[in-house]
Amino acid sequence: MPPDAANLGGGSLLLAWQLKDKHVLIVGGGDVASGRIKSVLVADALVTIISPNEGLHPLTKEYIKKTSNRITYHDRVFAGSGDLVDVDMVLTAVDDVEKSREICNMCRALKIPVNVADIPPSCDFYFGSQIRDGPLQIMISTNGQSPKLANIIKKRIEQSLPTNAGEAIKRVGNLRAQLKERAPGVGGDIGKRRMKWMVDVCTSWEMDDLALLDDAMIENLLDDGWENNRVPKADDVGARQIRPIFGTDWAKPTLILPALGFFAGAACMAFMRSHR
Amino acid sequence: MPPDAANLGGGSLLLAWQLKDKHVLIVGGGDVASGRIKSVLVADALVTIISPNEGLHPLTKEYIKKTSNRITYHDRVFAGSGDLVDVDMVLTAVDDVEKSREICNMCRALKIPVNVADIPPSCDFYFGSQIRDGPLQIMISTNGQSPKLANIIKKRIEQSLPTNAGEAIKRVGNLRAQLKERAPGVGGDIGKRRMKWMVDVCTSWEMDDLALLDDAMIENLLDDGWENNRVPKADDVGARQIRPIFGTDWAKPTLILPALGFFAGAACMAFMRSHR
Repeated sequence: MPPDAANLGGGSLLLAWQLKDKHVLIVGGGDVASGRIKSVLVADALVTIISPNEGLHPLTKEYIKKTSNRITYHDRVFAGSGDLVDVDMVLTAVDDVEKSREICNMCRALKIPVNVADIPPSCDFYFGSQIRDGPLQIMISTNGQSPKLANIIKKRIEQSLPTNAGEAIKRVGNLRAQLKERAPGVGGDIGKRRMKWMVDVCTSWEMDDLALLDDAMIENLLDDGWENNRVPKADDVGARQIRPIFGTDWAKPTLILPALGFFAGAACMAFMRSHR
Repeated sequence: MPPDAANLGGGSLLLAWQLKDKHVLIVGGGDVASGRIKSVLVADALVTIISPNEGLHPLTKEYIKKTSNRITYHDRVFAGSGDLVDVDMVLTAVDDVEKSREICNMCRALKIPVNVADIPPSCDFYFGSQIRDGPLQIMISTNGQSPKLANIIKKRIEQSLPTNAGEAIKRVGNLRAQLKERAPGVGGDIGKRRMKWMVDVCTSWEMDDLALLDDAMIENLLDDGWENNRVPKADDVGARQIRPIFGTDWAKPTLILPALGFFAGAACMAFMRSHR
């Protein structure tokens, strides 16, 4: 792909930020804040919420109650830079525009990544529409042009995702980990052979079959496939025994609709013949 | 949606990081580095590349040559913390694991977000498979479980995206901007009315019609729709005149396949009748 740098710009850098056990401060507790709480809990953050109790959305209250091991709640307004000590990320969602800008400036002075809801220039990063299915996460961003269309596109993508995609990814992650135990080593020839074999498995098996990979199948696949440097069929390493009778994709419109068309055509022709 | 915090974790925080005119340092110039260069140019970053010339991938060379207004290149190895002055983000992609960890530690001391290729614990954030169509950006992350499946899912999403999605988003962004000029004001009733009307337009028009919105159509739509607080049909504000004769979606399998089925069924029945 030749670089066409002149036409590249105008976008964002899409990232999967790591927050495991990092400290995230959320200023505000309303509707938007409750969405932020969910997003950072997904990433295993340690959350501090600062917001007067009367401004808490019911969902925010639920999170505070049910996730007390991860959330520290202060029933008050933001009190200044003392609230930013040891904080790794700040998300504000309050109605006070001046206060928001002030918090943003403090964060920037302290080099703490910050997002101020509804004030793009005060954001180091934006959020987007998100899909989650186990280890699979998808973000749809329209770079602020149309949140509604982001949402519509999100729904279309959800419908088009292979059933079992999340499960398949999880199982393939297990396979990869067990392969690495069997054939350890970083980089070099063994690393390359591992990577190539994993790619071969992922491209030659259907997503539904990858989603079946349990410990027994993984062991068969490694014994029969990895050791002999080949990719056996899913059925030959145990998929046939555990596959649901009707695969989850059997009802796809690409099969149903032509079949309906076929019967409609046949019936139509039969009717015409019987009436002439 | 009730919070089910216990099952939320294990993911990342997916973000659209803003890099317009920010300084990104890329250490290394090989294959991986060339991909990083593209990703940050997409976000309008100012890029510094530090890598001995003999390690440059042909694509990296092309970027350096063709984007000299955005890229500063140093033909040498990383020289220490002096290279990190005024840097907003660091991406390293070199083979030297020890050197990489050292750079990561310096960045963390200076609170500069850093990604070290292939060493997850030295990454504040990960990259994922990405789709771009104008203002539309989509990231697919498997949280490190299976880059190959991320890529397979990316291809399926690309195929399932509505044709013209990027164009529709761009045009809707224009409509939104022109509406804001016509009915200015932040927050309050006018803000709510604008938001609701935009959602109504996006949900009642097809993506293909939104992608047709030129200046004339936008003016008609605002005159006829916004001013009368309703959403006219796309055809009634000028879509009919400029729509391609065959919409881009006419050949969808959901239409073609049942039709083929119908004719097959009819032919089959005719054949059976004529042979009995």
